[in-house]
Parts: sequence; C-alpha cells; structure tokens
Amino acid sequence: MSVTIGVFDSGFGGLTVLRALLPQLPGVDFVYLGDSARLPYGSKSQATIARYAVSAAKFLEQEGAEFLVIACNTASALALDDIRAAARVPVLGVIETGAAAANAASITRDVLVLGTTATVESHAYANACAAHGLRVVEKACPLFVPLVEEGWIHHPVTADVANIYLTEALNRARAAGLSPDTLLLGCTHYPLLRELLESTLDRMFAEPLQIIDSAGVTAAAVARHFSAELRELPPSAPSIADCTFFATDSVAKFQSLGSQFLGQPIDHVTHIDLEE
Amino acid sequence: MSVTIGVFDSGFGGLTVLRALLPQLPGVDFVYLGDSARLPYGSKSQATIARYAVSAAKFLEQEGAEFLVIACNTASALALDDIRAAARVPVLGVIETGAAAANAASITRDVLVLGTTATVESHAYANACAAHGLRVVEKACPLFVPLVEEGWIHHPVTADVANIYLTEALNRARAAGLSPDTLLLGCTHYPLLRELLESTLDRMFAEPLQIIDSAGVTAAAVARHFSAELRELPPSAPSIADCTFFATDSVAKFQSLGSQFLGQPIDHVTHIDLEE
Repeated sequence: MSVTIGVFDSGFGGLTVLRALLPQLPGVDFVYLGDSARLPYGSKSQATIARYAVSAAKFLEQEGAEFLVIACNTASALALDDIRAAARVPVLGVIETGAAAANAASITRDVLVLGTTATVESHAYANACAAHGLRVVEKACPLFVPLVEEGWIHHPVTADVANIYLTEALNRARAAGLSPDTLLLGCTHYPLLRELLESTLDRMFAEPLQIIDSAGVTAAAVARHFSAELRELPPSAPSIADCTFFATDSVAKFQSLGSQFLGQPIDHVTHIDLEE
Repeated sequence: MSVTIGVFDSGFGGLTVLRALLPQLPGVDFVYLGDSARLPYGSKSQATIARYAVSAAKFLEQEGAEFLVIACNTASALALDDIRAAARVPVLGVIETGAAAANAASITRDVLVLGTTATVESHAYANACAAHGLRVVEKACPLFVPLVEEGWIHHPVTADVANIYLTEALNRARAAGLSPDTLLLGCTHYPLLRELLESTLDRMFAEPLQIIDSAGVTAAAVARHFSAELRELPPSAPSIADCTFFATDSVAKFQSLGSQFLGQPIDHVTHIDLEE
C-alpha cells in the first residue's frame, strides 16, 4: 500500500509545510503544486482565489492525492469551503490547525498572530482563534516575506525589523489589557525566521512567549490523520525522492528559491499551465 | 485649446511621474490609470504584459489622451514596441528617457542602475544605456519597494538597507574597473527614497554620485515635447484638479497608498475593469 498527499501553495512558502511533513510521514508520496504564475493571491478577490485554488486542488487529485494540505494562508482563509466542496478527498488548511495549536498551548488565553497584510486584514486567524475562546492581537509584518526572499534570514536588518514589529505588537496587546503567552506565525515564510524571532524575544522581552508555526502543527495534524496507515508502511527514511514538484511559472526560479524554503536542493520541477 | 496626457502604471509608483509632470506642465489635463488588479507585472510573461499594457493604452486614448507616458518600468522594458504599434498617439517610456539623461550627465561614462529584480533581470536599462556607449552596473534592490510601501521613507532600517545595497553596487563596479559618477533610479518607487539615498551617499562614500530619477527626467522630456503648446496655454498653477484617476482594483487602497506617492491627497478615483 502507499499514501499520496497533495500540498498546495500560491508559491514557495508552502515548502516549509512540506519540509515539516517529510520527517513526520516517512514513506509517504508527496505531490507539491506552487501556483507561482498567479501569485500573490493576497491582493486578489475571494472569487478569483477560490477559482484558482479549486483548479489547483483538482490537479492534485488527478495526480493521485488522497489528502490535500492547503499550505497557503490566503487560500486557507478565503477558499477552504470552496475547495472542500469541489474535492473528493479530505482537505486541511493551515489556519484551523494553527488556531487549534494556539488553543492547546495558551494558558493566559491571549495570543499574538503575525502575518502578511492580506492575512491580517482577512482576520482569518483572529476568527479561528476566537472560536476557541482566545483573545488575539494581529500584527501585519509586510517586510518579513521580502526579507526572507532576499535571503536575509540571519541578518541584523531583519533582527531590527523583527524587534520593531514585536515591540509594536506587544505594546498593542498591553494597551488592550492582554498578556499573550503564545506567538502564532501565520505565514508559511515565517518558519525560516523562527530562530531569529526566538533570539529577538529572548533579548528584548521579559515574558516568555512560545512560538507556534502553522507549518509544524499542520504536519503533526496530518501525521495524526494517517497514524494507522503510517504503522503499516514499511520503515523508510524521509526522502525528497518521494516528492513530485509542479509549478505554474519558471521552473528555474522554483528550484533556486524553493530549495531555500525546503532546506535541500530541488532537482526536478515540472511546469504546468492551470489557465482555463 | 487644451492638452490631455495619459499616464499609465501597473499600480501606484507611476504617480511619482505624475507628481513630477504636474509642475512642469501647468494647465495640462492628465488621465492616470493604475492597473492595480493585475500588479505586479514584473513576474509575468512578455506576451501577458504586452496584452495588459496595450489594453491600458487603448483605454487612455478613449479617455482623450493625445500623448502616453508609460510610467511603468516593466511595461517600458517589455511592451513599448507593442504599445507604439497599437496606439495612434506618441508614446514615451521611462527607460529610454532615464538612459538619455544618464548619457547627458555622465562624464566618466560609467553608470550605476538600481531597480527591482524583474527590471534588473531584463537588462532593459543596461541595454538602453549601452546604446549610448555607457558602461553599466545594475543592482537589484528588492527591499526598497516594500520599505516604501511600509511607509519607512526616512527610517534607520531603510538607511541600513540603502547602505548595504549601495556598498555592494559600488564594490561590484570597482571590481569591474568602473568609476561610476551617475546613479540612475530605475523604479518609480525610488524617487521617494531620493533624499535618503543622497544622505547615505554623502555619509558613506567619498565619490560624488549624481542621482537621476526617471520620473523627473521623463517629466522634463514631456515638457520639451509640448513646449509649443505650453506657450499657448493660459497661465495657471499646477493642480490636481486637472487629474482624473482610474484604478482596476480597490479605489480606497488607491486613494490611501497613491496619495503618498503623489504627495497630496487623491479625492476621487474611478474603478474600471480592463479584463476581456
């Protein structure tokens, strides 16, 4: 027997989710689709995002996916119901798993959420957290994605920016009377900044904040879903050889930028065209 | 008599060109179109960019434009011939005017060009400058646009980033045996950083570099084109009342972000749909 899981993102960020999935689900086959020709999704209308995401989900089903991970915050926020209605297989989004993990982790019940401007303006994390009874302060961090894409992962400029953003978020939380003990990284680019954010928090702030990245907790949720199947799979080491990559824009760009997000070289990417 | 000039950009950056045009052409009517629903152009194919830009040019002609300013680096680099073939009126792009101004200004014949990744990878400025016999070092500055859009125009982080980018560009120029005396700002967002770049250059570098922004020199070229008509226009002060604004995405976002680029409030924007 074998298991095939489809992972979808508008671009490269979802590769941090695949990176977290690989060691949790050894022996599983993965099909990754980055809709890089149509990114960014964040600035587009709900109807357009739903149309794009549904076409991507159908493509991954055709490629044999028995389970879909929507590793894209915008599509998870705005198109999860449309994808579930169109897909014949289970669908999991990064926002609901992130909110559930924050719920399990927070003792004060107060949570900080960092995300892109589009994700923060959608209030998707705030709504998902509020459903668990959590109080939330959301902070847009529009420079984090370009800093990661510039490759400035451990860079003094990025540390300065992180300090400014975190100070503003914590000041806003205190002004609202909140005592956050949990920091939710609501963007698939941000796990690459996890170490830098941890050391910034250690250096600048007295209160201990536990960091939850939706990539890690989504991978854990998928592993729980497949726990029975995983027990039956023959033992094997996690390997990128079990991954098939598709991109809708430049294959060369996907390989070079994508390898940074995945943390290992991507040797082969197939170009596909999803335009109707 | 009256003169109507159409100004086109994929979004807001072209408003720095309109900002430079207003005082140079008092009494002229302007029609500005920001194709904000389809930005960014930089990551799209030549055929797609040409199709978008031609539809925008035709719209501006319908609105009465007798002259078109392509205030978008990507469209100027990749679609100027297509726009000229489709338009019945004169068309001017920011890249050719920027290169001509660098040619007039440089004594050493060595020029630094700063631009977005897409513009630099197209080598459009390098080719346009080489046609004048100039030697060029191009440097992609992918963080400048998000820093401007974050509103960090006079900010220590932006000064740090400018210092890093300029140091790298000048080191690369020296390694190639060049002595640049001219810095060409090859992105319509960058005029907002002009003061910060000037003070960074003054503080960090011995050699004097004169800064040319394509917005300013494009405005000067348009004013030269209309010098006869300008003499016949009744005297008047430059006024935003002579401008009509169209955007293909959110009118509210165009007003708030666009006002920063124009340097004064934009009261009225009309939404249009260019999709076929």
